[in-house]
Amino acid sequence: MGKLEQEFAAYRERMNARILEEDNRVIKRVYSVDSLAYAEDAGELPKQTRELLGLVASLVLRCDDCVKYHVKEARDAGNSRKAIVEAMSIGLVVGGTIVVPHLRRAIEFLDDIEDPAPGG
Amino acid sequence: MGKLEQEFAAYRERMNARILEEDNRVIKRVYSVDSLAYAEDAGELPKQTRELLGLVASLVLRCDDCVKYHVKEARDAGNSRKAIVEAMSIGLVVGGTIVVPHLRRAIEFLDDIEDPAPGG
Amino acid sequence: MGKLEQEFAAYRERMNARILEEDNRVIKRVYSVDSLAYAEDAGELPKQTRELLGLVASLVLRCDDCVKYHVKEARDAGNSRKAIVEAMSIGLVVGGTIVVPHLRRAIEFLDDIEDPAPGG
Amino acid sequence: MGKLEQEFAAYRERMNARILEEDNRVIKRVYSVDSLAYAEDAGELPKQTRELLGLVASLVLRCDDCVKYHVKEARDAGNSRKAIVEAMSIGLVVGGTIVVPHLRRAIEFLDDIEDPAPGG
Amino acid sequence: MGKLEQEFAAYRERMNARILEEDNRVIKRVYSVDSLAYAEDAGELPKQTRELLGLVASLVLRCDDCVKYHVKEARDAGNSRKAIVEAMSIGLVVGGTIVVPHLRRAIEFLDDIEDPAPGG
Amino acid sequence: MGKLEQEFAAYRERMNARILEEDNRVIKRVYSVDSLAYAEDAGELPKQTRELLGLVASLVLRCDDCVKYHVKEARDAGNSRKAIVEAMSIGLVVGGTIVVPHLRRAIEFLDDIEDPAPGG
Repeated sequence: MGKLEQEFAAYRERMNARILEEDNRVIKRVYSVDSLAYAEDAGELPKQTRELLGLVASLVLRCDDCVKYHVKEARDAGNSRKAIVEAMSIGLVVGGTIVVPHLRRAIEFLDDIEDPAPGG
Repeated sequence: MGKLEQEFAAYRERMNARILEEDNRVIKRVYSVDSLAYAEDAGELPKQTRELLGLVASLVLRCDDCVKYHVKEARDAGNSRKAIVEAMSIGLVVGGTIVVPHLRRAIEFLDDIEDPAPGG
Repeated sequence: MGKLEQEFAAYRERMNARILEEDNRVIKRVYSVDSLAYAEDAGELPKQTRELLGLVASLVLRCDDCVKYHVKEARDAGNSRKAIVEAMSIGLVVGGTIVVPHLRRAIEFLDDIEDPAPGG
Repeated sequence: MGKLEQEFAAYRERMNARILEEDNRVIKRVYSVDSLAYAEDAGELPKQTRELLGLVASLVLRCDDCVKYHVKEARDAGNSRKAIVEAMSIGLVVGGTIVVPHLRRAIEFLDDIEDPAPGG
Repeated sequence: MGKLEQEFAAYRERMNARILEEDNRVIKRVYSVDSLAYAEDAGELPKQTRELLGLVASLVLRCDDCVKYHVKEARDAGNSRKAIVEAMSIGLVVGGTIVVPHLRRAIEFLDDIEDPAPGG
Repeated sequence: MGKLEQEFAAYRERMNARILEEDNRVIKRVYSVDSLAYAEDAGELPKQTRELLGLVASLVLRCDDCVKYHVKEARDAGNSRKAIVEAMSIGLVVGGTIVVPHLRRAIEFLDDIEDPAPGG
């Protein structure tokens, strides 16, 4: 696992657990519908495609952490690097150059996943 | 062609022509890269998938006209109604209930395309 | 019922029914968590306050239909006009002058609810 | 005065008056700082430039009414049509193709101002 | 005072002072209307509620620093942790899962305020 | 060169190069139209003004890296500090107090450019 990925996953896991401890029913249900939306057997479109949809939505809304999450999931679901970059290119066209800094961080994260720095 | 679709397409075509008459090089190039992004042979992902990506990006950014455009294109590219609605459901989860009014208009437009009202 | 309110409520009801007919589990669950969030007995804060929270969120995200919905709900939950306008003023400060056109439509809708035009 | 411009100005004026009747101090002050920001003698940059800044901000935030307002003000402050379109092109690049439908309405409004339809 | 809170407050104070040194009238007035909006005696709604409104607006607009500020103010104004989390849950429903990473940081900050790490 | 500027420029350059290595035609063209939009001889408005337009668009869309980039470019194109701050004040009015944290970072960056800390 790359260094960026490791840090992100650890923080994400720790704080998600903390949030669910609040025992707020509304929050819990949002977490649960989120899982359902990308679940293996959720529907008509393969998970591979649904993860790209989540990625593009995250990119145009410019949420770095959401992008990281879906980059990883999209890769694990079998998308090639080329397919992921192409999905990002759609996000860039729709969202404009304001997306560029987020694209930089997205590609950095993709590199981190695919070719972790030594010690990562 | 449905009534909503007809009105939308006519306005879109007329004003796009008007915009290109301005003869602004930057605008022209944005239009051209937009065409390229969704072109039949543009890349790794099939147009069918790329149109769903454009649709979800448009939905979470809550642009009704963009949603209409990609609903139509996504349908024409061979996506089933079920697949389109599923893509929208991803947008709804990512973007929240603020997306709901746009989802209403998107479904209305989808109905208009598939089953035009008499005289439409 | 005011004219604007009547039109909005009719369209909203019709299209929500249409959306739920799609039988998409993710969409249905989002609708259900939305109801839960503002339900009479949902939690710590009174519904009166939760509706103002939904209103301000809708206003800064600049969703006219969402604003209409929460203006009506906030009023019905017992908020005075003054309280509603004050909540909107917070949204205006946070969201900036870009919110102004939405504020205009929100006040128009509030007027429509409180003092329906004849024949409305 | 063009037809679109006339309708927009009338509604804007009527509802702004209505809003100020609410007698909410926060709202009043936001209106007042808004006037100050674009006032003839407000500062370092000429009003001509400040109106273009307001226009681009409105366009990337995709607020049609705000765009209309600043298109009119920018024109009245002495900007050529070419300059206004160029400012819009910056907004299009920064904001992406999601801006296109707003650009269409902006150009339509600019046409309406410059060459009102007969009877307008 | 927690460590996160301390760092945030110090930076905020230092840079706000720096900004006001610019002596720009428009900026100064925006700062002043911001203070007015949340002032102790500002209006119809108690400060306790107004801070929750500011919090939810900040959360759906996904501004981490704004969220931090209002979390602290909302707590100081007498809101329970449960009430703050419930307000956030409304923001999560309205704003969607894109809000989740901001919710994580918000809860982390709330923890930092309530139970500062040793040495914090 | 200031420390913040140095870090930002290095990361930006490195990752932009990495992105272009992906050899995605759509991304390349977006980069190229971005260059064109702010090019020395691009059009009707002087580069000095176009950079302010890019700055305000970036500020209201709340993209810190985009703001940094245009602050630097706007300064290099001959805008005074006062003019840059005034452009930012327009962004603050349009975008609301949600812009404030980004304004803090923008002013910090402007300070870094103009008066680099020792060793920067």
